[in-house]
Amino acid sequence: MHQDRIRHPAFIKKLTTAAEAARLFKNGMTVGMSGFTRAGDAKAMPIALAERARHEPLQLTLLTGASLGNGSDGLMADAGLLARRMPFQSDATLRRKINAGEIMYIDQHLSETAEQLRSHSLAPVDIAVIEAVAITEEGGIIPTMAVGNSASFVQQARSVIVEINLSAPTELEGLHDIYLPQRQPGRQPIPLTSPEQRIGSAAIAVDPARVAAIVITDSPDSPSTVLSPDKETAAIAGHIVDFFKEEVAAGRMGLELMPLQAGIGSIANAVLLGLIGSPFHDMTMYSEVLQDSAIALLDSGQLRFASASSITLSSPVHDHFMRHIRDYRSRLLLRPQEISNHPEIVRRLGLIALNTALEFDIYGNVNSTHVAGTRMMNGIGGSGDFARNSHLSLFVSKSVAKAGAISSVVPMVSHVDHTEHDVNILVTEWGLADLRGLAPRERAPLIIERCAHPDYRAQLRAYFEQAACRGGHTPHLLEQALSWHSEYQSAGTMLQS
Amino acid sequence: MHQDRIRHPAFIKKLTTAAEAARLFKNGMTVGMSGFTRAGDAKAMPIALAERARHEPLQLTLLTGASLGNGSDGLMADAGLLARRMPFQSDATLRRKINAGEIMYIDQHLSETAEQLRSHSLAPVDIAVIEAVAITEEGGIIPTMAVGNSASFVQQARSVIVEINLSAPTELEGLHDIYLPQRQPGRQPIPLTSPEQRIGSAAIAVDPARVAAIVITDSPDSPSTVLSPDKETAAIAGHIVDFFKEEVAAGRMGLELMPLQAGIGSIANAVLLGLIGSPFHDMTMYSEVLQDSAIALLDSGQLRFASASSITLSSPVHDHFMRHIRDYRSRLLLRPQEISNHPEIVRRLGLIALNTALEFDIYGNVNSTHVAGTRMMNGIGGSGDFARNSHLSLFVSKSVAKAGAISSVVPMVSHVDHTEHDVNILVTEWGLADLRGLAPRERAPLIIERCAHPDYRAQLRAYFEQAACRGGHTPHLLEQALSWHSEYQSAGTMLQS
Repeated sequence: MHQDRIRHPAFIKKLTTAAEAARLFKNGMTVGMSGFTRAGDAKAMPIALAERARHEPLQLTLLTGASLGNGSDGLMADAGLLARRMPFQSDATLRRKINAGEIMYIDQHLSETAEQLRSHSLAPVDIAVIEAVAITEEGGIIPTMAVGNSASFVQQARSVIVEINLSAPTELEGLHDIYLPQRQPGRQPIPLTSPEQRIGSAAIAVDPARVAAIVITDSPDSPSTVLSPDKETAAIAGHIVDFFKEEVAAGRMGLELMPLQAGIGSIANAVLLGLIGSPFHDMTMYSEVLQDSAIALLDSGQLRFASASSITLSSPVHDHFMRHIRDYRSRLLLRPQEISNHPEIVRRLGLIALNTALEFDIYGNVNSTHVAGTRMMNGIGGSGDFARNSHLSLFVSKSVAKAGAISSVVPMVSHVDHTEHDVNILVTEWGLADLRGLAPRERAPLIIERCAHPDYRAQLRAYFEQAACRGGHTPHLLEQALSWHSEYQSAGTMLQS
Repeated sequence: MHQDRIRHPAFIKKLTTAAEAARLFKNGMTVGMSGFTRAGDAKAMPIALAERARHEPLQLTLLTGASLGNGSDGLMADAGLLARRMPFQSDATLRRKINAGEIMYIDQHLSETAEQLRSHSLAPVDIAVIEAVAITEEGGIIPTMAVGNSASFVQQARSVIVEINLSAPTELEGLHDIYLPQRQPGRQPIPLTSPEQRIGSAAIAVDPARVAAIVITDSPDSPSTVLSPDKETAAIAGHIVDFFKEEVAAGRMGLELMPLQAGIGSIANAVLLGLIGSPFHDMTMYSEVLQDSAIALLDSGQLRFASASSITLSSPVHDHFMRHIRDYRSRLLLRPQEISNHPEIVRRLGLIALNTALEFDIYGNVNSTHVAGTRMMNGIGGSGDFARNSHLSLFVSKSVAKAGAISSVVPMVSHVDHTEHDVNILVTEWGLADLRGLAPRERAPLIIERCAHPDYRAQLRAYFEQAACRGGHTPHLLEQALSWHSEYQSAGTMLQS
């Protein structure tokens, strides 16, 4: 039974049910689960653990790669299983409990969790729960559609539970490249110098003695919730394509551009779709996640190779991908998130980093996580790993939200995830502001005129002009700087009558 | 004449006066000057250029390594010579003009200027002005007490002016290690794996045809303005030594610690002095600047090796250093700031980064540049290069300023240079808050009780408790978040009566 999936004899006898495996967990443990942007997450163990937590005291610190699919985060949060959660999430129920202060959430640069575990700056992982395609003859774990932090969790956990997912085709074997940096001191350079380069092994090595249980599942990944491009996201894509053309014309890059990173979500997906039919070719991606747009760009022939830590697709694109997996396998690679997001590699390759802002201010500071400065949306994810160390850091947003009641361009952001130092280019559907080499007093007029919604430009100009009269390198009226957010909360709109 | 200083025949005939060399500059040019934290700056050309600017229209964009000494920044600002300035400064006159909006200042991560020049994201450097000990037989430029961005400026400038400083002893030759990363794509790993490793050449290579002038000077570097430790900075040092002992006891590092980076200024200097007599030994530094404390630690025998981009010393320590330069030369190395601050190396070596905050908030966000959110003090410098990518990121500050009228711990910082994601440890004279693995609601009480001045704790507690009732992952009262700063401006104190 499952001989093509469990090819090492020592693992066969570990087969058990999720309910049995769930008995291995003790109250207060730290657990590391596979899963990154709703791909490659363990399917059975979250359900079994939530079930236990409903009947007895069981609270865990849960680490993952990034967000989980299948409503698992919500299910576990709702059952009271989660005391602490890191480094990323995107679940409505979990978000509510985080914002109520009921679950402690540690929102972290996605490249750093593995490093903090390795240096014992975080409590050690007691149990790793890893979804896999198969166990190899040598006893290696083949991940499914994400690598995330799985290799680090396996390396460091006291015991390991593997979920073999029969719905993940065995053809996924060969898609992964597992490499982890050494502990300091004496760490050597990571030898990666191009997105397509393999530097590791195809499977996660594990001592069979540490494998406590193997569980069989067949639930697929949750489909991506990405929305089709609309008028605004198509306009954003158009501005970025024009900007890339100017960069090429200025001799700053070739038509292959630089390796692209694109954050999760509909806007980033739309921007990449906007590259189809553009003059750019032989492009590469070096990203944390690949969405539908990456597959479309591979199909268009313009994208030569894509490296990431996970693949999260809509149902039709997922089916298409799986039908042609043998073709894609030579043009795709999944790496540990520590490597996909590593500052060393991001800087060396000279990435173009494309991430999404909730709001940005007239000086170029970006909030990508906190609604009204207080309520967590998802998390910073990998955007900080990429924006700080990239060749070019772009942030995109629609200019307004809530039918115009909220301006995404504000006098001062209510929370800073990316400082002015890490933001080169801002884009909304109205235009693009190139902030390179500009002082704050030069950035403000440019951002207002190029990016703000026309309805808000006069208000923004008035703020900036009044602040500039008062002086300072970065002029502000501190008593009014956050008043737009307060105004929205009290009057329902940021728009002054 | 000067045969020991100008050892290549093609350079001898370039000898001229600073006034003559100043004629090479045209209005609107971009100029790259040597100098980093008041060390290794060109002495004669700033004076000659300021003189020209007083009599004819001459405005420049000035790039340096970091801050200049000898009042040069003030002199040039005062003469109206500076239209634009980057990436760092610390001069009172220049600061005033920046804050008045008269000079456009681009405050930048110090590792990034060279990268932006290399990729042509900034306008090219027309003229490089580099202070040197000597020109070698092969025509290489030997820098003085700083490397900064000098190698990049020389590599990229249309023409080069060298200031040979006779007050810099020829024994400085051999102190420098010049290596610059390649342009992308195809860049290889930077081969540095330990602070003492040499990866480049002892001199900056230059084609003699591009050298437009050589000027002779003999003015010394400005002495460091660092203050001796006081009760508060000694207490900060004590908390950090205790923390390091705990890290060693927990097995997270050995008694050699990890390579240390310390920012410029009296507090960082005092912290390093506090390590003298501690149980730590065989330590290394991998920093951007070495102050008096680094020399004292070398003398104590506890510091094995120090790598940096500049050395800035008080007069007595400078004299001591120069008397023993032959001894120090085997235990010190100066690198380009792109390498001393490079994310790739900072992450690989696993640095302990120690930088200074102007203020920090109850959630761990740090302002290190803007007084009251608007007025630039100096600049972010290298703190962002180090804090984001280090193994451990510490920020230190005295708990109050202006005789207690300003609390350095506030509800919300008025400007964010370092987000909560990049700050592991906060320290004031009252104590140390270890934020690793903590959610915002856990950080706030810890920061208030450990770091805030007792006079401000009740106010901070009241803010946090009221905000927490209102909810959110990072609770805030937006309408009051910046009121402490406004209150200081209107009432002269943040302290509520």
